[in-house]
Amino acid sequence: MNLKMVSYILGLLLMFQAVFMAIPAVTALCYGEQELWIFLGIALICLLIGRLMTWRKPKNKTLFAREGFVIVALSWIVLSLIGAMPFFLSREIPNYIDALFESVSGFTTTGASILTEVESLPRSIIMWRSFTHWIGGMGVLVFIMAFLPLSGAQNMHIMKAESPGPSVGKLVPRVKTTALLLYAIYFALTVMQWILLLCGGMSLFDSLNTAFATAGTGGFGIRNDSLNGYSAYVQIVVTVFMLLFSINFNSYYFLLRGKLKEAFTTEVKAFLLIVGTVITIVTINIHAIFGSVGEALRHAAFTIASLISTTGFATVDFNTWPELSRALLVLVMFVGACAGSTGGGIKVSRILILCKSVTKELRNMLHPKQVKRITMDSHAVDHDVVRSVNVYMICYAVIFIGSFLVLSLENNDLVTTFTAVTATLNNIGPGLEMVGPTANYAFFSMPSKFVLIFDMLAGRLELFPMLLIFLPNTWKK
Amino acid sequence: MNLKMVSYILGLLLMFQAVFMAIPAVTALCYGEQELWIFLGIALICLLIGRLMTWRKPKNKTLFAREGFVIVALSWIVLSLIGAMPFFLSREIPNYIDALFESVSGFTTTGASILTEVESLPRSIIMWRSFTHWIGGMGVLVFIMAFLPLSGAQNMHIMKAESPGPSVGKLVPRVKTTALLLYAIYFALTVMQWILLLCGGMSLFDSLNTAFATAGTGGFGIRNDSLNGYSAYVQIVVTVFMLLFSINFNSYYFLLRGKLKEAFTTEVKAFLLIVGTVITIVTINIHAIFGSVGEALRHAAFTIASLISTTGFATVDFNTWPELSRALLVLVMFVGACAGSTGGGIKVSRILILCKSVTKELRNMLHPKQVKRITMDSHAVDHDVVRSVNVYMICYAVIFIGSFLVLSLENNDLVTTFTAVTATLNNIGPGLEMVGPTANYAFFSMPSKFVLIFDMLAGRLELFPMLLIFLPNTWKK
Repeated sequence: MNLKMVSYILGLLLMFQAVFMAIPAVTALCYGEQELWIFLGIALICLLIGRLMTWRKPKNKTLFAREGFVIVALSWIVLSLIGAMPFFLSREIPNYIDALFESVSGFTTTGASILTEVESLPRSIIMWRSFTHWIGGMGVLVFIMAFLPLSGAQNMHIMKAESPGPSVGKLVPRVKTTALLLYAIYFALTVMQWILLLCGGMSLFDSLNTAFATAGTGGFGIRNDSLNGYSAYVQIVVTVFMLLFSINFNSYYFLLRGKLKEAFTTEVKAFLLIVGTVITIVTINIHAIFGSVGEALRHAAFTIASLISTTGFATVDFNTWPELSRALLVLVMFVGACAGSTGGGIKVSRILILCKSVTKELRNMLHPKQVKRITMDSHAVDHDVVRSVNVYMICYAVIFIGSFLVLSLENNDLVTTFTAVTATLNNIGPGLEMVGPTANYAFFSMPSKFVLIFDMLAGRLELFPMLLIFLPNTWKK
Repeated sequence: MNLKMVSYILGLLLMFQAVFMAIPAVTALCYGEQELWIFLGIALICLLIGRLMTWRKPKNKTLFAREGFVIVALSWIVLSLIGAMPFFLSREIPNYIDALFESVSGFTTTGASILTEVESLPRSIIMWRSFTHWIGGMGVLVFIMAFLPLSGAQNMHIMKAESPGPSVGKLVPRVKTTALLLYAIYFALTVMQWILLLCGGMSLFDSLNTAFATAGTGGFGIRNDSLNGYSAYVQIVVTVFMLLFSINFNSYYFLLRGKLKEAFTTEVKAFLLIVGTVITIVTINIHAIFGSVGEALRHAAFTIASLISTTGFATVDFNTWPELSRALLVLVMFVGACAGSTGGGIKVSRILILCKSVTKELRNMLHPKQVKRITMDSHAVDHDVVRSVNVYMICYAVIFIGSFLVLSLENNDLVTTFTAVTATLNNIGPGLEMVGPTANYAFFSMPSKFVLIFDMLAGRLELFPMLLIFLPNTWKK
């Protein structure tokens, strides 16, 4: 384990963390809030410690797969620990574990909150809360790689460990350029949504916050009733952008270069097909509640876009919908977005690979001597990828079951326990019943909150980094 | 597809079906019930058709893997269709689909019932209901193979397709002898339990029925309150035998030959460890309900033995237990028994293989160049077995989700829907809430009952045969 290099990158992270504080600091300045000093103080301390940790560049810059996992896991833990400080120091969340829950929920783009009331928070704190979504959405280490001259191909290990999806493709040969391109697309899309929201008459502050929370597919609202109070126009804009941010960013790159075929991959098509089908069924199912088909369609589309993108915004209390719709919503929570997007969940490509490998294996049972490979977009899927998808699913089940058991100690109803794990492990936010869209996570005990914090981090980092740091093997020389 | 051979074996099955009718026929004779004529009539027709179908032995006796799957799937469907006739013709279950549900539930050793009242049924009908468990437990085709001189190694394909577990080991080189040995152990254990129940003062009729239902890990009760009304002695005997019938029958063979090490495989040890741990936790958790630890332990042990063995007997209404216990009970339903036993569920050995392959793959992520194989009981686990376990899990998830969605159309609460699928796909019987131990499956609509019938068959035959008969590829020349 190249600990010097790990510490060096953590130092870089701290300095970036200091820079991130600029956004809420400026907000505090604009609104004349005294939280300004908290943000400046944290920034200063981060800068100092970060500078000390990066004083000497390590001679041995070699990074292997395990360093990649360790760097990503530790970075996200440090990021969250510091990100919780503004909530804690401003005394808006007096308990540090609660503040940590909120911070982890922000960075992992979950959007599950322990706050019963958000409208009375200082503007700068709301802005920091939304901005954590934006940072976490595309990944903080990808951000560092985009802007710092970290050398060489070894950074691929970090990128692989942080980016969502079963396999990470480089858009261009250089990792740094790939990271820059991704962030450029991310930034452009966010700005587009911001402008469209402004056009809908949303205030500067509201629109910026909403754009940050949508871009990261996070879901922290700035009002207590999420997006219920906004106009139909705003809700439709948010629906469209939640879906746009759930699509593999590589597709936008290919779209810009005019490569239509490469842009519309099997995964993107499957994602759109799932979204379309589920919206249709739910619209029919909830039609009676809203009276008109148009109204039902708008709320169905918003809710499904919100849950499959794992954003977690709400326009209505979908907890009261009929059981078929509720069941479909829970399923959609597991499916999640496309790989290489800012969304969470299991990811459409993993599900496609699983389905294809089942068909292949069933055929293989009939004709044991035929050897066929799984293909996707007319490329053979690497055997390692198939295996890692299988392992991912099993780890997923193990973490899910373990969390479910610990949470069931609270003696809440099974649906609450089940969907609380579903909504955190898939980075969605709201679940059903006691953690439904009109409720929050404040009632859980401290041990349960720790489990949920772990689930959010594990979900965002796609399990392996968070599991591997507990394996003694990882830390051996 | 060797259709002649498929039809020949189905003919044999029909003749055996006729012989099975002897047990309820004798019961009807003893109690002077007019159902005697129904059983004799069905037997006669089965014999006639069976004899016609086996008139000419096919020249080409070659059976491949796909014939194995098709024979097993069709045999179980035919078995169930005919097994439903006594319920239907006696007018005890006036709707044929309901009768089919009961018959499938019997043969697949599920024990889920659509009857609200069983005590008033004719004795011969109750006996037939319990006897279906015994036939289904060890498998009807294994039975045929044990007693008929079906030639050769090709029968292994049938045995593989019908026997539970990820890989089927032959005890002795000949398939026929293996099948005979398994049935001998099965018969001996059943008789042992029967005698022990008789010693506890249970009537001849009650004890024989209970022994059949325990041996097959089925769970059809002969009283409306399952085993609640019997003495503590009877309940303890049943607890012990439910566990004994959940252990790989190969272990008994090795035990008889004095090979202790071969008998106590990793799977058996893991099974006992899981049972012990869960009983301890649940006993502590429900201790307050029963007042004394002894009482709590007895009910906890009975319930967990009943659910992990997928029998489904009940002494108390475990639906009212605290959430932690309920969550553990649901989990244990998924785990299931050992491979090569009469129990259902995912099977302990599959879960062990999954855990081992995860550990291996996680290690592999740290050190990509190391190649290690998974071992079990100091044998390397075949790569094909690992893959088939992965495929099994994915098919399991797909069937589970599909069934869950169709059932959620009924608009019952999520826990009812979820556990109804769990209890049928794992061949358990009772679930929670509306399908809890004091309830039954009568309220489901016909389409839902069809889904549950499919789930019970798919669960008993370990998914693949029931999936493959729907693949057009299977039927190609």
